[in-house]
Amino acid sequence: MTQVFRARGLPEDRAGTAADALCHGDLTGFTSHGITNLTRLYLPLLDSGRCDPRAEPRIVTDRGASVLLDARRALGLWAATEAMDLAVERARRYGVGMVSVRGATHFGCAGHHALRAVRHHMVGLVTANCGRQRIVRPVGGRSPMLGTNPLALAAPAGDRPPFVLDMATTVAPTGRVRAAARAGQSVPAGWLQDDDGGPVTDPAAFDRGQAHLRWLGGDPDTGGYKGFGLGLLVEVLSALVPGAGIGPREEAAEPAGPDDDIGCFLLAVAPGRLRPEAEFRSDAAALFGALLGCPPVRADEPVSYPGWPEDARSRERRAHGVPLEPALHREMLDLARNSGLGFPEPVPPTEAGSPA
Amino acid sequence: MTQVFRARGLPEDRAGTAADALCHGDLTGFTSHGITNLTRLYLPLLDSGRCDPRAEPRIVTDRGASVLLDARRALGLWAATEAMDLAVERARRYGVGMVSVRGATHFGCAGHHALRAVRHHMVGLVTANCGRQRIVRPVGGRSPMLGTNPLALAAPAGDRPPFVLDMATTVAPTGRVRAAARAGQSVPAGWLQDDDGGPVTDPAAFDRGQAHLRWLGGDPDTGGYKGFGLGLLVEVLSALVPGAGIGPREEAAEPAGPDDDIGCFLLAVAPGRLRPEAEFRSDAAALFGALLGCPPVRADEPVSYPGWPEDARSRERRAHGVPLEPALHREMLDLARNSGLGFPEPVPPTEAGSPA
Repeated sequence: MTQVFRARGLPEDRAGTAADALCHGDLTGFTSHGITNLTRLYLPLLDSGRCDPRAEPRIVTDRGASVLLDARRALGLWAATEAMDLAVERARRYGVGMVSVRGATHFGCAGHHALRAVRHHMVGLVTANCGRQRIVRPVGGRSPMLGTNPLALAAPAGDRPPFVLDMATTVAPTGRVRAAARAGQSVPAGWLQDDDGGPVTDPAAFDRGQAHLRWLGGDPDTGGYKGFGLGLLVEVLSALVPGAGIGPREEAAEPAGPDDDIGCFLLAVAPGRLRPEAEFRSDAAALFGALLGCPPVRADEPVSYPGWPEDARSRERRAHGVPLEPALHREMLDLARNSGLGFPEPVPPTEAGSPA
Repeated sequence: MTQVFRARGLPEDRAGTAADALCHGDLTGFTSHGITNLTRLYLPLLDSGRCDPRAEPRIVTDRGASVLLDARRALGLWAATEAMDLAVERARRYGVGMVSVRGATHFGCAGHHALRAVRHHMVGLVTANCGRQRIVRPVGGRSPMLGTNPLALAAPAGDRPPFVLDMATTVAPTGRVRAAARAGQSVPAGWLQDDDGGPVTDPAAFDRGQAHLRWLGGDPDTGGYKGFGLGLLVEVLSALVPGAGIGPREEAAEPAGPDDDIGCFLLAVAPGRLRPEAEFRSDAAALFGALLGCPPVRADEPVSYPGWPEDARSRERRAHGVPLEPALHREMLDLARNSGLGFPEPVPPTEAGSPA
C-alpha cells in the first residue's frame, strides 16, 4: 500500500501513514473501509486531481487549544492522523485540544485516527461528514440530504485493548451494503427501507435508488430520531464549525453530490493533565475489566466492549495473515504489477481466502 | 419551583436556575425529566443530605481551556448550568472550553444545559453518566452495569430554533418506561427485552426485574453494539475523565447502585473564534433551513430537526399554559400548601389536563 501511494506522488512518510490507516480496516475486520477502497475511492481521487498528494495543510486560525485547519485536498488517510497528532499536542498543554478541519478528503476508519490519542494516554473523539454528498434522508423526508457521518471515540483501558467505538450514524455504512451486493448476499431487515418505509433486504436495491439507508435506531418509536440527530451532531461538529461542505441544501440537486470539501472534528482529552495519570489508568482498567468480567448470557460468548474484538482480530491477522476475498487479492496483485512494484506472482487462493 | 428550592435551602439565584432547568422538561415535552421528578428525585436527594443545597463547587485543576470541577454534591440542575457557562467563558478565549465534573447530582435535561452555549453563538455538547447506578446490561451480559447515560448537543440554526439533540443512549430513558407504567400503558416493542432477548411491552415488568432496557440500535444486527458503545462513550467522557463514580465493577453488587458522584462532560465550541461569525451564522441558517425545506414523505408532516418541535411546544406552552396530568397537578398544589408557599387553591382539572 505504501508503494502504491508513493507511486501516486505521496512523500514517503505520508504514504506509510496513509497505508497504515487503510490497512486498519482489513486488520480489524472493518473490511468495507479497508483496501477494497483503494481502487474504488482513493486512486480515482488522486488520479482525477480531486485529492492533491503533496498538499500542505494550512493553519487558518490558531487559538492554542483549538486550531482551524484547511487540509487543501490532502489525502485524508494521512491528513486526519496528522490533525489528531496536533490535537494531542495541544491537549498536552491545555488538557483539551481541538482541530477543526475543512477541505479534507476521505479518511478511512474514524477509529484509527481516534486511536492516535490513546498512545498518549488520552481520549480521542473523531467525527467527519461526507462533504456535499447526499445519501441519507432526514426522518420523514423524501430527499437524501446527509452522509453516513461517522463518529469514533477511543480511550485507554489499562492493560486491556483500548475501547474504540467506530460507527456510522446510519444502521450500517454504505460500504457494507455494497459489499453485500457484490457478494450476492442479502442484508438484515432494518438496514434499508423502500419509499413507503417497508423493509428491503436486497442490497442491490440501494444503488438502484429503490431502497434508502436507515438511521441508527430505525423506526421513530425505537429511536430513529436519535440516529438522525447523531448524524446532524456529526454534520455540525465536523462541517458547520470549520465551514466545510455540507450536505443539506435548498436547491434541488442530484442525490449524490461529490464528497469534496469534507469536514472533520478531532478532539483530544488529556485526563492526566486534570488528575494524576496513575489514577486515571487504574480507573480505566477497572471500568473495562469489569465489563470483561460481566457474566455472559451465553456461556460461550463472553462479554466484551467495542475495540476488544477488533484488537484480537488485528493481532491474529498480523501474526497469521489477512484473509482477502479472491477477487480483491487478484485486484491488488494486478495493481502491483501494473504499477511496476515488483510484487510476487499471485498465490492460488485457499478455501479461507488468500494470504495478503 | 423556585420557591420550593429556596425553601430547601438553595440561595435565590441557584433556586431560579434550578427551576428553569426542571421546567425545561415540561415546556419542551420531555415530561419524564420535568417537575414529576421534584418529589421523586430532587427533594429526596436534598432531604436525605445526598445533595447539599449550599455546596460551593471547587476547581480542582485549571488548564485554561479545560477545568476539572468537583461539584461537591451541589444540585445538578443548577451546577451543570454554571459548569456550561464556565466552558463558554473558556471557549471565548481558546475556541474550545471543556469542564469535566465529578461529585455531581442529577442535572435534569442534558439539552437544557447544552443550550446555554447557543446564547453565545456556540455549540454545546453535554454528557453525564448515572454515577454508580447500574441499570443497563452490556450487550451479551447478564448483569446491569451502566446507566442510561444521556448525551446532548445544541447548535445555533440562524433565525430558526436551535438544533438540540437530547437523548438517552438506551432506546428510551427509564423515566418514560415508569411514566407508561404509572399510566397503565404499554411501551413499543423494542424498548424492553426479557432474559432471553424476547420483546416485552409491559413497562411494569421493568421495575419487577423481568425486563431490561435495550440500547439504541436494538439487536446486534441493527446496531445494538453502537448504542452500547455510545453508552460507554458517555461513561468515558463524563466519569472516567474526571474520576467520578462509574457503573461497572467487578464485585457482585445490587443491580441499582446509588446515582451519587455523577460525572459530567461539558464542551463549548466557539466557531466565531475560528472563522468569521457572520459566515458561521449564515452557514447554520442554510443547513437547518434546507432540512426544513426537504420535501416530506407525508404532505401533512413537514420535515424538521431535533429541537424544532420542542421549541414550538415550549413557545406555545409559555403562552397558553402547560398541560399537567391531574395527579401531578394535585401533587404540586399539595407540595405548595405543605411548604407554606401560599399558592392558590387547586383549579379543577379540565379534559386536556390542568393549567400550571
